[in-house]
This record gives sequence, structure tokens and C-alpha cells, in this order.
Amino acid sequence: MAPTRVRRLVATTLAAGTAIIALPATGEAATREYWVAAAPTLWNIVPNGRDAIHGSTFSPADTTSTTVVYRRYTRGWKRPLRERGSNGEGIQGPLLHARVGDRVLVHFKNLDTAFGRPHSMHFHGFEYKVSSDGAWIPGFSGRGAVVEPGQSFTYRLEAGPGSTGVWPYHDHSQAMEDSIAGGMYGALSILGRRERRPDREFVVVFTPARGFQSINGRAFVGNTPIPRARVGELVQWDVIAMGSEHHTFHVHGHKWRNADGTPEDTRTVGPAESFRLRWREKAPGTWLYHCHVETHMAQGMIGLYRVRR
Amino acid sequence: MAPTRVRRLVATTLAAGTAIIALPATGEAATREYWVAAAPTLWNIVPNGRDAIHGSTFSPADTTSTTVVYRRYTRGWKRPLRERGSNGEGIQGPLLHARVGDRVLVHFKNLDTAFGRPHSMHFHGFEYKVSSDGAWIPGFSGRGAVVEPGQSFTYRLEAGPGSTGVWPYHDHSQAMEDSIAGGMYGALSILGRRERRPDREFVVVFTPARGFQSINGRAFVGNTPIPRARVGELVQWDVIAMGSEHHTFHVHGHKWRNADGTPEDTRTVGPAESFRLRWREKAPGTWLYHCHVETHMAQGMIGLYRVRR
Amino acid sequence: MAPTRVRRLVATTLAAGTAIIALPATGEAATREYWVAAAPTLWNIVPNGRDAIHGSTFSPADTTSTTVVYRRYTRGWKRPLRERGSNGEGIQGPLLHARVGDRVLVHFKNLDTAFGRPHSMHFHGFEYKVSSDGAWIPGFSGRGAVVEPGQSFTYRLEAGPGSTGVWPYHDHSQAMEDSIAGGMYGALSILGRRERRPDREFVVVFTPARGFQSINGRAFVGNTPIPRARVGELVQWDVIAMGSEHHTFHVHGHKWRNADGTPEDTRTVGPAESFRLRWREKAPGTWLYHCHVETHMAQGMIGLYRVRR
Repeated sequence: MAPTRVRRLVATTLAAGTAIIALPATGEAATREYWVAAAPTLWNIVPNGRDAIHGSTFSPADTTSTTVVYRRYTRGWKRPLRERGSNGEGIQGPLLHARVGDRVLVHFKNLDTAFGRPHSMHFHGFEYKVSSDGAWIPGFSGRGAVVEPGQSFTYRLEAGPGSTGVWPYHDHSQAMEDSIAGGMYGALSILGRRERRPDREFVVVFTPARGFQSINGRAFVGNTPIPRARVGELVQWDVIAMGSEHHTFHVHGHKWRNADGTPEDTRTVGPAESFRLRWREKAPGTWLYHCHVETHMAQGMIGLYRVRR
Repeated sequence: MAPTRVRRLVATTLAAGTAIIALPATGEAATREYWVAAAPTLWNIVPNGRDAIHGSTFSPADTTSTTVVYRRYTRGWKRPLRERGSNGEGIQGPLLHARVGDRVLVHFKNLDTAFGRPHSMHFHGFEYKVSSDGAWIPGFSGRGAVVEPGQSFTYRLEAGPGSTGVWPYHDHSQAMEDSIAGGMYGALSILGRRERRPDREFVVVFTPARGFQSINGRAFVGNTPIPRARVGELVQWDVIAMGSEHHTFHVHGHKWRNADGTPEDTRTVGPAESFRLRWREKAPGTWLYHCHVETHMAQGMIGLYRVRR
Repeated sequence: MAPTRVRRLVATTLAAGTAIIALPATGEAATREYWVAAAPTLWNIVPNGRDAIHGSTFSPADTTSTTVVYRRYTRGWKRPLRERGSNGEGIQGPLLHARVGDRVLVHFKNLDTAFGRPHSMHFHGFEYKVSSDGAWIPGFSGRGAVVEPGQSFTYRLEAGPGSTGVWPYHDHSQAMEDSIAGGMYGALSILGRRERRPDREFVVVFTPARGFQSINGRAFVGNTPIPRARVGELVQWDVIAMGSEHHTFHVHGHKWRNADGTPEDTRTVGPAESFRLRWREKAPGTWLYHCHVETHMAQGMIGLYRVRR
């Protein structure tokens, strides 16, 4: 079953600010294909121009720039997929789904007409041969590590027994620091073969961005994504950091247990680390979620989480 | 049984530098009440004016300032509780205790005559309704998030099944960065319903402070708290970080196992993260405990731990 | 069986870039002795003068300095052990091995003729009396914390039940910040009493170094160690951070499970934290391993890992 088909089925029922869950039902292993391009876009880190908590304002000139990001296309590159929610309402690339046992083909095309740089995709979590590693090593790496503008490459991946969880993918070409700072990253969400899928799945990527601290490339309450859920739903948070700093993820009014059973409500996540959190929602209200590093909160790494009865 | 009553009973047997353990005996769930005010105080980060390890000296003018901190009062605001040890010998607020199953009422009064700012209390670890969240969100939050000078608010909390452990509480009003940097934070220690309480409980809060790196608001050996224990005692360390930096907690001559059984003697703790460590003491001597980030050690985040036979 | 004897037996079969595994066979607890001196050396952080990934070059004058490091000697200080691999091809001290139950004597001699400073050894992971702690505390510490140039001291250590794992050792004299920045650290690897020893053991110490970010005191692909393994071998990575920064360890094309079973391919390690990772190698190719903090990668904290069929 093609992911794009499922996605269309569920898209109409999505509340604003929630990520699309485009998973096939539990069952037989499948080959899943994604079409993802590196494409230019205009990026405004503070679309509403305000830090609502501290009352400061910003002009679009200070918060907007041209950059290159990952964008999903329909099968065979027919047209870009633009619907909101497909990337967790952010600058990052599409949320890619799989189940353990799946083969995944990611067809990548470099449409970077803005800077004309080579790009690549490097995937955490999946199993793959070195030819699909996507990381540039002078003298060793192959075509998948340096995809020149106008060129394509297909990464061949497998969701193995140790792939369950949430992982980042990102550019790993020679220009990777600039590219990642510009938003060339995204999330992978891999479920166990028969694992229940959540009712809601929220992507949270912590990254610095042009002097701000962003969630999914947006800064400050009112710009960052607003995950929404209802009491009784099984929610899943996909938390990732990219860049050069360590963060601590915190959600008000909620706790979880780490894998060894210890209760937590705040957890460190460093560059390229990632984790998923799940809970059955029971706390109605408008809550804050944020990085608890205080300078990061003050620079925008904070948002609202809304739970209805 | 009122916590203040228990506290008075044990206070006379306390060695210097140990925290008071004011827990009711294991048994029925209780409603516990605390009275905590935001009150001005004079804060000297280096009371003895010396970095004993490197031999440098500091003048009180460089290490002293007026700030606002949490201070515990007796029932009904009759008088402030000033006895040493009640806050682990530091600038932070009182160590609040509960057991899973307890309801906890924290009566908060803003006595900030120093700066005249609104303040609040935001609690990690506890369960509560959004009205007791204490975090300022423009357009959403209620009275508990902006307690003006002279005003009061009662936070209604519950120690749920996932509340066991050690957690921070802190200001989450609009002025939270300044307030937290000024010392408006404290520790919660929540035991399981029938969990053994330790013989000694030591609070360690890592925070930066006016260019120093502090433990409980004090910098350098001789100023930081000196936890004391005897061989054979069950000791518990309550470790928390506040601020914008990650730390690594280390105790010389001691190890522990993390929840999954792996031995450790050093553990990362980031802003608002927290953990408790327990061991049966068996290593007599005068030991160092410190943050192992080397610049933090050099700036004061180090102390002595003394174990007698 | 003396460690030095075993080492000589296996040294001839070592592939370049792998660490020596000088462990006695599983069996009876032993007393193991090491001779380690603090000795001057010339340290070049970028021996080949190049950052191969970004194409920049460096002159030896900017990357070379005199420093003092730990160097292993043969029994009774007869001669220094200089063979490559003995320290994981880096600036750090020898990789010290033990098994749970062993007594370990480390004979330390201060041969610091470069700066004439006192030095010491402070060991994580081992059990020891306070007299072998090696950390300078004014008014409390003994001879082992301030070993003056020309003097010696023997640290008496035990590998207890909670000592299994990988740990750092380092200078903890008054000059520790300078000394550690200069390379006075090393790794301990302690196996369980009957634990299988790995076929390959790789030491990775993340430290800043004179404006670079180093692995084992070397920066950039081509200078950092090149661990080598074959498909089917049991490999072990000993990962440690020293200094003042947090890092995230990542190996391309490989994953592991943390102790509670969660799959990972990237893990935070802060100053003096450490962990060991093991896997049965199955992924042939030339891979990258690196700290995933992007500024650290760009400043040299990256290397090649080569796996042959």
C-alpha cells in the first residue's frame, strides 16, 4: 500500500498542528518508497514577528532567509506535497514512516538552484550498505554522498530489529554544517512489526537558527508547532536535536517513564540524539512544552500543547 | 502529622550540612501543607572569600547581592523557618517532602519587596490541574502564574504513581530567567508509598551564579555544603541542575548503579533534570564531590563529603 | 600472569590502529601491577597538517606543543613501552585492564621535567581507600595527591563488583585543568570475572585541544585513530569525554542497544562520563565515527572505522 494513498485518507481528519500518520496497518513487511528533493524555500523563523512571552518584536528582514530543505514529492516526482502537517509544521523534511521488516527506498533529487551545492541524505536508525550511507569521505565515499544539483540517487534502507524508534536524517555532504543549519534534516519514525501506532504523533526538532533557538525551525509561542490531542488518545512525541548544543525536553503537566521505569518529565537530548515518548493523554488544558535550557527558552525554544476533553 | 512537628523532633540530632528529613512514617496517604514565600535576602556566593584549591580570594562586594528566594514559614505564616539544614545549606528554597498518594498544598505568598516583581511556583514531578501549573502563558494562564507582590496563591498537587524521585520546583513567571538566576528554585523529594526513607539526604543543585558555578548557591570548597554521613548509613543524594548548562555529577570513592544496573560514578544532568542516588555508606574519609566539567570545577562547583566510621 | 608478558605475546598480531588487549585469561583473581610515569612529550594534534574533509591546512607550529602525559614502563621502570597501539594511538595514557576481583597496583612516578609541576593519578571505577584517591584537597589529602617531580607513589586499587565497564583516569593535582588539557588522562577497561573479552577494543577519548576538538589528542580524518575490524569479530568501543564539553558519539552504519534495550546510534557523553559499546561486526566498509556536535566535527572530532569481510 503506497504511503501517499494512506496519507490522503487520513489528511482530512487532521487537527491543525498535528503530524500526519501515514502508516500501513500492521501486517506483512512491505517495500516503501519516498520521493524527497533538496529544494529552495523562503524561511521565516518568526512568522508572526513576536516573542509573546517577553513582548519583543522582530522585523521580517531579521528572521527571513532563503535556504534549501527536504521536500516530499508524489510518486515519480509528479508534484511536491505541500499539505500542512506533513512535516510537523516546520522547516524540516517529511516525517518518514516504516515498520521493522520493511525495505525502504528513498529517491533523492538535488534541486538546489539557490546555492548550487551538492547534497545528500544520511539516515540514522536504518540498516544499509555503505553505498547508501550518504556521508562524504574524501577518497572513499560513492555517488550517494555527493549528489550534484540536477542529479538523483536512491538510498536503499532496511528497518531491522534494532531500528524501532525515532531517528534523524540529514545532509552529510561536504556542505553539511551550512545545510543542517539551513534546515536540511528530518525525522524517521519506525514502529515494531506489530506495534500499536499512536493516535497522534508530534515531531519536535530542537535546532539553533540564525541567533534564535527553534523548534522545527520556528521560534516563540505562536510560531512553534501547537500539538493538539484529546483526553484518552495515545500520543507520541518524536524528539530530536540537531546542531551543536545539548537541550532538555520538558512538557508541563506530564510525565513519562524512561525505558528502565524511572519517572521523568525532562530529558537531555544532544546533537543527533533522539527518543520517542508515549502516553495515554489524561491532562486537559493548554500547556507549555519547551527546552528547559533557560537561554534557549528565552530565544524561542518553547511552544503550546493543547489537550481537549 | 504536620511536617513542621516532625522537623522539630529531628532537628536537634542533625550534623551540620545535612538536610532535614521531615517525612511522616510509612502509612496512610496524607494531606501535607507547606507555606513558602518569595522573600528578599542578601546572597553571598563565596562567604569565606576564598577558593581554597587555587588560592584566589574575592571581596564581598564581588560575591554579594540582594536577591529573592523561596523561604519556608510555619503554618499560617506565623514566622519564617530559618534553621540551617532546612534547605540543604544553600540559597535554594526548602526541600519539600511527600509520599506517593499524598495530596500536597503549597501556600505561596509573594513578599518580593526588593524588586516588586510577580512570581510563581512551577512544580516538576507532581500531578496537578493546569490551574496549578504556575507557568505564565500570555492569554491562557491563570492567577497561579502571576502572583503579584503582596498576593498569595495555593498550588494543589498530588504525588501520583509516577512521582517517585527527586524533582525541581522554580519560578515560572514572566521574570523567570532573572528569578531562577537569583535562586528561586528548590528540590522536591517524593518517596514511594512504602519506600524506606534514607538516613541522610543531601540536596545538590548545580547552577551558575554571577560568574561563578555554584552548588546550592555557594562556590568553592569551604563554602559549598559539606554532606556528612557514617559508615553503614543509607545516604541519598538529590541532584538537580538549573540554568542553561549541562553538568556531570561525580563523587570520589563512590559508585552507584543506574536504574538498568550499569555501574556509574559520573552522570550528566542538564537544566531541570534531576535524579536521586542511594547507597549504603562504606567508604570512610574526606572526599570530593563536584561537577566534572572542568571549567565548572575551577569556578567553584566542588565540595567536601565527609564520612566517619 | 604479568600483564606485560601477555602484551608481548599479542603485540605481533595487532593490526594498525587497534588497541592492545592485554588481559589474562578468565580465572582466578590476580594482583596486577602497572608502572606509569608522567613524562614530557611533543604533541602534534594534526600530524599530517590537513583537514581532509574541508581541505584546510595547518602548519606544525600551530598544532605542536610540549606537554606532559602518562607513559607506561616495563616492570620496575626498566624502559618505556613505546609500541603503537598501547594507548589506542593517541596522546592519552596506557589502556589499563583488569577483571572484577583483581587487586591493581599502579606505580606512578613524576618525570615532569618540562614544567616541574606536581602530578597525580585519580581513578574512576575502581574501589580504593581515601589514601589512593589522588585528588588534592588542601588540608586533607595525602602524598598520593601531590607527587612532586622525581617522586613516586603507588595507588592501591580493587576491581569490585560494581567496577565492570570503562572508566577514565586523570591527573587530579592542583594543576589538573592544565594537565588534563595537556593530555594527562587515560582509559581503564574492567571486565566481569568471567566476561568474554572482545576481539577488538577501541579507545575513543573526546577532548578539546588547543582550539581543535580531538579524538585521543588528534584532529581530523587521517590523524585520528582508524579502528579496524573484520566481519564476525566482537568489537568493543571504550568511549570517554574529558574537558568541559558534552559530546554525542556516533558510528555510521552501526547501532547498539543501551542497557535497557533501547536501540541507539548516538549517545551523549559528558566530562568524565564513559561507556563501552559492543557488537558482533557485520557491516563491511569504510565508515565514519565522530562526535555529532557539528562544531566539534568541523574542528576535527571525526575519524574512519574500517571493517573488512
